[in-house]
Amino acid sequence: MKKMNIGVIPGDGVGKEVMPEAVKVLDAIAEVHGGLSFEYKSYPYSCEYYLEHGKMMADDGLEQLKNHDAVFLGAVGNPQLVPDHISLWGLLIAIRREFEQVINVRPAKQLRGIQSPLANPKGFDFVVVRENSEGEYSEVGGRIHRGADEVAIQNAVFTRKGTERAMRFAFDLAKERNSHVTSATKSNGIVHSMPFWDEVFRSVGEDYQDVDTVSNHIDALAAFLITRPEAFDVIVASNLFGDILTDVGAAIMGSIGVAPAANINLNGKFPSMFEPVHGSAPDIVGKGIANPVGQIWTGKMMLDHLGEQELGQKLLDVIEEVLEAGYKTPDIGGNATTKEVTEEIAQRLKAL
Amino acid sequence: MKKMNIGVIPGDGVGKEVMPEAVKVLDAIAEVHGGLSFEYKSYPYSCEYYLEHGKMMADDGLEQLKNHDAVFLGAVGNPQLVPDHISLWGLLIAIRREFEQVINVRPAKQLRGIQSPLANPKGFDFVVVRENSEGEYSEVGGRIHRGADEVAIQNAVFTRKGTERAMRFAFDLAKERNSHVTSATKSNGIVHSMPFWDEVFRSVGEDYQDVDTVSNHIDALAAFLITRPEAFDVIVASNLFGDILTDVGAAIMGSIGVAPAANINLNGKFPSMFEPVHGSAPDIVGKGIANPVGQIWTGKMMLDHLGEQELGQKLLDVIEEVLEAGYKTPDIGGNATTKEVTEEIAQRLKAL
Ligand SMILES: CC(C)[C@H](C(=O)O)[C@@H](O)C(=O)O
Ligand SMILES: CC(C)[C@H](C(=O)O)[C@@H](O)C(=O)O
Repeated sequence: MKKMNIGVIPGDGVGKEVMPEAVKVLDAIAEVHGGLSFEYKSYPYSCEYYLEHGKMMADDGLEQLKNHDAVFLGAVGNPQLVPDHISLWGLLIAIRREFEQVINVRPAKQLRGIQSPLANPKGFDFVVVRENSEGEYSEVGGRIHRGADEVAIQNAVFTRKGTERAMRFAFDLAKERNSHVTSATKSNGIVHSMPFWDEVFRSVGEDYQDVDTVSNHIDALAAFLITRPEAFDVIVASNLFGDILTDVGAAIMGSIGVAPAANINLNGKFPSMFEPVHGSAPDIVGKGIANPVGQIWTGKMMLDHLGEQELGQKLLDVIEEVLEAGYKTPDIGGNATTKEVTEEIAQRLKAL
Repeated sequence: MKKMNIGVIPGDGVGKEVMPEAVKVLDAIAEVHGGLSFEYKSYPYSCEYYLEHGKMMADDGLEQLKNHDAVFLGAVGNPQLVPDHISLWGLLIAIRREFEQVINVRPAKQLRGIQSPLANPKGFDFVVVRENSEGEYSEVGGRIHRGADEVAIQNAVFTRKGTERAMRFAFDLAKERNSHVTSATKSNGIVHSMPFWDEVFRSVGEDYQDVDTVSNHIDALAAFLITRPEAFDVIVASNLFGDILTDVGAAIMGSIGVAPAANINLNGKFPSMFEPVHGSAPDIVGKGIANPVGQIWTGKMMLDHLGEQELGQKLLDVIEEVLEAGYKTPDIGGNATTKEVTEEIAQRLKAL
C-alpha cells in the first residue's frame, strides 16, 4: 500500500462543504483501484481562524504544511469577516508564493452531461497555464497624498525567469496535447510589461519548432473563448490574465463550481497545492447544494500530479458519467445535493 | 440647416472600408430627418502614413483635429507594418489622452436579428463606462538588466480625480437607466490600486443613495457576462478591465463587428472621438465583407453626443430592422457585403 500524505485546508464557506466530499471520493478510488491510501491532516486556516488569532495561519503553518506530499485546499475568503486582500494574501497567495508554486494549471473542457451557456460549445478542451508567482499580483506599490490629490500606484513585475518558466511549461504541455500555444498579451495598450512578455514568448517559441504559436490580445482572447473556444489548446497567460481567462473558461463549462486548478511547485522543494477555481460562495453556504465537482476534479489533478494518471482518468470518466446520469447540483441545472452527487460518484468508483 | 464639422480618420484595414459607408448613413439620416448637415475633413493617419512619414500623425495633427465638433475614427493598427504599441500610442491613445477623452462608453445589447453565441441571452442591455485616461495603460515603467536577469516593470497609476470622475459618470448614467452600478475590481489579488478603487467607489456611491451598487472581481464579472448578462445595467471599470469586459460584451452580442464606442471629453476643451470596438481586422481586408454596423452604431453615439438623440434612436431602430430582415455580413451569419448592409440601412432611413 502506497501512502500519500495530504495537508487539507477546507478554508471558508463552501470549501468546508465540498472538501469532506472530495476526500470521500479520493479514498474510494485510491483504495479500491490504486492500492494507495491517503493520510490527511486537516488545518483550520480560514477567516474564522483569523478572527480568533489575528492571522490567517499559525506561525508554523507553512512549516507544517511543507511536510505533506500535496496540499488540498477548498476555498478562502469571506469579505463579511475579513477583507479579501488580507485573507487571500495571508493564506492562498502566501502558500502559492512561499511554496514556490510558480505555475497555475487550469483545464477547461466541455463535460458530458453539463449544458454550456454557449449555444454551440463544439467540444472545447483547452488548458490555461497561468504564471502564478509575479506579474500584476505584486506587493510593490503604494499611495501618495490624501483626499482629492490621492494617487495609488501598482507595480506589475515581470521577470525573464518567471515569464520564461511559465512559457516553457506551456510549450511542454502543448507537446503532450495538440501542439498549439496561444499567448495572452496586451502589448498594444500596456507598453512595458507586455512587449517584454511577447519577446520572451517569441524567443521560447524558437526552442519548440513543432509547436504552433499565436499571440492574442487579452480582450480579443476573452471574446474568442466565447465565439470559438474549440480553437484553443494551451493558453499561456500572466497572473491576472490567467485569472480572468480561467473564470471565462469556467463560465463556458457551465459553472464556476466545476472548474479545477493546480498550483505547481517545479523545484521539488515544496508541495504543490490543489484548489478549485470557485470561491467560498457565501450566498449558498449551509444549503448543502454546493457543487462538489470542482473540488473532486481538482482531486483528479492531485492524483495526476502524484503519478496516478490512470486513476485520475478513471475519476474524470466517472464524474462525467454521473453528470450525464443527471446527478447535478442546482448551479448546473439539477436538483441534487452536494452529498447526493458525491455519493453517486463514490459508489460508481467502488463498483468499477 | 445646422452644420456639424467632423474630423474623419478611416485609419487602417477595415476602417477604410466601413468609414465611407457609415458616412453615407449619417448623411442620409441627418439631411432627411434632422435638417442637419455634416461637413467632413478626412485625415490619412494610419500605419501606412507612418511608413511614409515616420510618425502616425502630422505634427499639427492634433491642432487640426481640435477644430472639429467630433472625431470619427475607423480602426488603427496593422502589426505587419508597425508594432501595435507604436501605432496605437501614436494615434488612438494619443488622441484619447491629448483631447482629455477621459471616459470611454460602450453599450452592449442583444440586437434584434443577431444570434448571440449564448444559448439564452435574455435580452441583456448594459453599458460599460471605462476609465480612459490612466490606470493600467501608463507609460510609467521600464526594464532593468539583460538576458536571463531582465525585469520589466509596469506601473498602473490611479488618481482619485480620474477614478472618481469615471465613477460619477457611471452613476449619472445609471440614474437615466436602471439605477444599478457594478464596479469591476480585483482587490483580492491586486493590493494597491484596487482597494483604492473600491474606496473611491464606496465614497462616490454615498452621493447616489438611489443607485444600487455592487462590486465584482473582474474574473467573476467576466464570467457573469456569460452566465447572466441580463443582470447588469451600468458597469464601471478601469482602463484595462473596461477593455476586456467590452470585448466580452461584443462577443455576446454576436460579433465584435457590431460594437460601438465613444471617447468622451468632459471639459469641453476638445472634441470627443467615436470609434467602434473592433480593430482593423487585416484578415478580411479587401473582401468587402467587413461589418459596417459597429461603425454605424458608433455614428449613432456621435449623433447622441451632438444633441441629436432622436435621430440616434431612429438610426438604431433601423439598424435592428435591417439585421432582422437578414441583411448581415458573414461574421454574424449572413452573406451580405459591407455595401449591401449599408445601402439597405440608408434606403430605409430615407424612406422613413
Ligand atoms: C487597440 C487598443 C490599444 C485599444 C485599447 O485597448 O484601448 C482597443 O482594444 C480598444 O478597446 O479600443
Ligand atoms: C481569490 C483570488 C486572489 C484568486 C486569484 O485571483 O488568484 C482567485 O480568483 C483564483 O483565481 O484563484
